[in-house]
Amino acid sequence: MNVRHHWNEIIDLVEKALDAFLPGAGEYPRKINEAMRYSVFAGGKRIRPLLIILAATLFNDKWQRALPAACALELIHTYSLIHDDLPAMDDDDFRRGKPTAHRAFGEAAAILSGDALLTLAFSLLCDDSLQDAYSEIYRQEVPPAVKLRVIAELAGAAGVRGMIAGQILDLEAEGRIVEIEMLNEINTRKTGALITAALRCGALLGEAPERGLQQLSKYALPLGRGFQIVDDLLDLEGDEAKMGKQKGMDKIRDKATIVSLCGAAAAKELRDNLYREAISELAVFGERAIMLQELTCFIFYRDY
Amino acid sequence: MNVRHHWNEIIDLVEKALDAFLPGAGEYPRKINEAMRYSVFAGGKRIRPLLIILAATLFNDKWQRALPAACALELIHTYSLIHDDLPAMDDDDFRRGKPTAHRAFGEAAAILSGDALLTLAFSLLCDDSLQDAYSEIYRQEVPPAVKLRVIAELAGAAGVRGMIAGQILDLEAEGRIVEIEMLNEINTRKTGALITAALRCGALLGEAPERGLQQLSKYALPLGRGFQIVDDLLDLEGDEAKMGKQKGMDKIRDKATIVSLCGAAAAKELRDNLYREAISELAVFGERAIMLQELTCFIFYRDY
Repeated sequence: MNVRHHWNEIIDLVEKALDAFLPGAGEYPRKINEAMRYSVFAGGKRIRPLLIILAATLFNDKWQRALPAACALELIHTYSLIHDDLPAMDDDDFRRGKPTAHRAFGEAAAILSGDALLTLAFSLLCDDSLQDAYSEIYRQEVPPAVKLRVIAELAGAAGVRGMIAGQILDLEAEGRIVEIEMLNEINTRKTGALITAALRCGALLGEAPERGLQQLSKYALPLGRGFQIVDDLLDLEGDEAKMGKQKGMDKIRDKATIVSLCGAAAAKELRDNLYREAISELAVFGERAIMLQELTCFIFYRDY
Repeated sequence: MNVRHHWNEIIDLVEKALDAFLPGAGEYPRKINEAMRYSVFAGGKRIRPLLIILAATLFNDKWQRALPAACALELIHTYSLIHDDLPAMDDDDFRRGKPTAHRAFGEAAAILSGDALLTLAFSLLCDDSLQDAYSEIYRQEVPPAVKLRVIAELAGAAGVRGMIAGQILDLEAEGRIVEIEMLNEINTRKTGALITAALRCGALLGEAPERGLQQLSKYALPLGRGFQIVDDLLDLEGDEAKMGKQKGMDKIRDKATIVSLCGAAAAKELRDNLYREAISELAVFGERAIMLQELTCFIFYRDY
């Protein structure tokens, strides 16, 4: 299908750009560079980079200038997974079918490789010395004030009022009775913040008018909530081979999710409602939103 | 003394600005905000913020615009200490006379508070929504292109080719025979990179000409090396009460330092030579460098 074909082309470019931006695996000191590459190229779906780029294409055709930000967001996402998997946090041994970073490289290198990915994300967004084709486009075409807004969006979403708050609340909620409002709060911060930032950064890089930014923020809300519910459903009934991880971990950890609170049937109904809501928020963009509609469908009905 | 008086005034402003930039301790989620404040206000000497601000004053009098960057650098320094102290790294129980972050708040909150401080540092440098008097000056007076250069300097120095490389090399060197060249390499990255970045950021924010930037980079080299040698000497013969930590840890960890490789007498001679070298690199700035000379003297001959 044509849409999926273009989508895969974008992912290929993201992979190549990530490869260009990361220090070489043989570069000194090797261990940390190997650890960074190991986690970045562990088979992620690249949903967040796609969201940035497809959001940019809603407003103009110069989406290649969004590639550095798309890579930065993927690095931030990867760092958050590495740190979340640590023994002191979720203590996961496997992710995407491979040993987690601390199992493969030891805990110190895992912590430091996460730190390094987070820091590199910000370097990508401002450092003119990175001589890559896409950073050249970004350097020449994106006004400094827009770059600063992109950095502010990502730092805000990844920070203590966004993703990090979600992670600490999530850890604190384990084994406790959690109300649905608290669960929504956790998910909004832990998953929703970066998804909202992806869409807003894409809009900024696509030179969207202010109301375009606001419209994408509205779309982001059901998308972020749906994203998390699908993750929770997959933990219950996903395909372990495709996901590359063990099912049922939420139950083992006594972790409150929408599924554990409301049951799978109600969670699916909520998912379907959120899907319709998300799609309806895209309507105003008409034809230009075709790829984003397709990605929305994938996010809500994926099986891994 | 007048110089020290002005210096203390600057430190007071840095403390106040840090307090304004950090989320309130009572802000939700409390644990992470408390953990961030605990480490930031644990009695650091604020040498790096002073370096940024005193570097800026070499070139003009509008040094207050350097306060957000000074705070950002202190947050990055604090995050690096929290992560370095973790059980998987140096496994330290005390710092500056207080339990380390993971001893006080648990390992998960320590890791996350470090992540949060690193992320907040970048927010400070670009986010116009931070409504503080100094961020207002910064917002109005610093051109976006200069802000981007400041972010690039800090991200580069803190990243995988700077401080993080130094930390992984340091961990790998423990218990091994290390040549003096390797030790210089570790120290240049681990300590020197952020010190160089502090001086360069100060120069950028002071609107220094390119040769001013280069001159400060030359001054940074002996300063960074001397800084580390003094730390190593203090571990051998410092005042435990004043330092707030146990002496002799390098020996217990079988950690190679200039002191362990060359002996204390040779290390002191090297320190004295580096001090003279650093001071001579400041000569070109004449009278304006008086406070930076005083700070240099403190860095080389401090007893804590």
